[in-house]
Amino acid sequence: METSEPKNEIFPKGEPLSNEYFTGNAFLTPLLGKDKNNEFAIGSVTFEAGARTHWHTHPRGQVLIVTDGEGFYQEKGEPAQVLKKGDVVNIPEDVEHWHGASANKYFVHIAITNYKGEQNVVWLQPVTGEEYNSVK
Amino acid sequence: METSEPKNEIFPKGEPLSNEYFTGNAFLTPLLGKDKNNEFAIGSVTFEAGARTHWHTHPRGQVLIVTDGEGFYQEKGEPAQVLKKGDVVNIPEDVEHWHGASANKYFVHIAITNYKGEQNVVWLQPVTGEEYNSVK
Repeated sequence: METSEPKNEIFPKGEPLSNEYFTGNAFLTPLLGKDKNNEFAIGSVTFEAGARTHWHTHPRGQVLIVTDGEGFYQEKGEPAQVLKKGDVVNIPEDVEHWHGASANKYFVHIAITNYKGEQNVVWLQPVTGEEYNSVK
Repeated sequence: METSEPKNEIFPKGEPLSNEYFTGNAFLTPLLGKDKNNEFAIGSVTFEAGARTHWHTHPRGQVLIVTDGEGFYQEKGEPAQVLKKGDVVNIPEDVEHWHGASANKYFVHIAITNYKGEQNVVWLQPVTGEEYNSVK
């Protein structure tokens, strides 16, 4: 599909993310690691159409900055939010959620993931086809 | 000039930044403020060709993510570093530096500016024409 691959992207697509935590094809380019000033890691995540994270939480939250494409952010029990280029999501701590591409278009975001001690994510169960299809 | 304005930008250009701290025309779109999880502010800064910050320091550092155009980052007493789309700069705490556009092209970056208490920047003197012309 003409809309299935990003054009003029800012970062390389990166390396494939594990299907242990992602459904479909998602890729990561790490941009910055946690250090003495930055209590977060930064990466650019590219989701192919239909790809998404599993449900998960962040012990100290995460900020998403959408740089290209179209996707969704959904907190458990809430309607999904459509995301487009330029949108920013401030994900609270310990809230179960997922994010990923729309069914027909890729999705690219920068993720700034805060650490609580040495931990920045808790992975949970996959987003089922039924759950995904109800919002796409 | 055909290269003097960004195309297909992610964020709006934003509001003009004060000439008390910037030389030339620079603009800010705030993306996120400091809160209980995020000990930083995030904004997208657009510099017109030739525009730059004054010399300044950050008490707990800053991360720049270049999203478009071409510019410079220079630490006092060091050669300037050319920056292009996709580059990331991890600016240390308390290091005097400036950033801004090249002489012939706009420059756009996301800035993630860490706070030390309630402070995230200390502004200093302007980058003189002589200093700027020596690197452009």
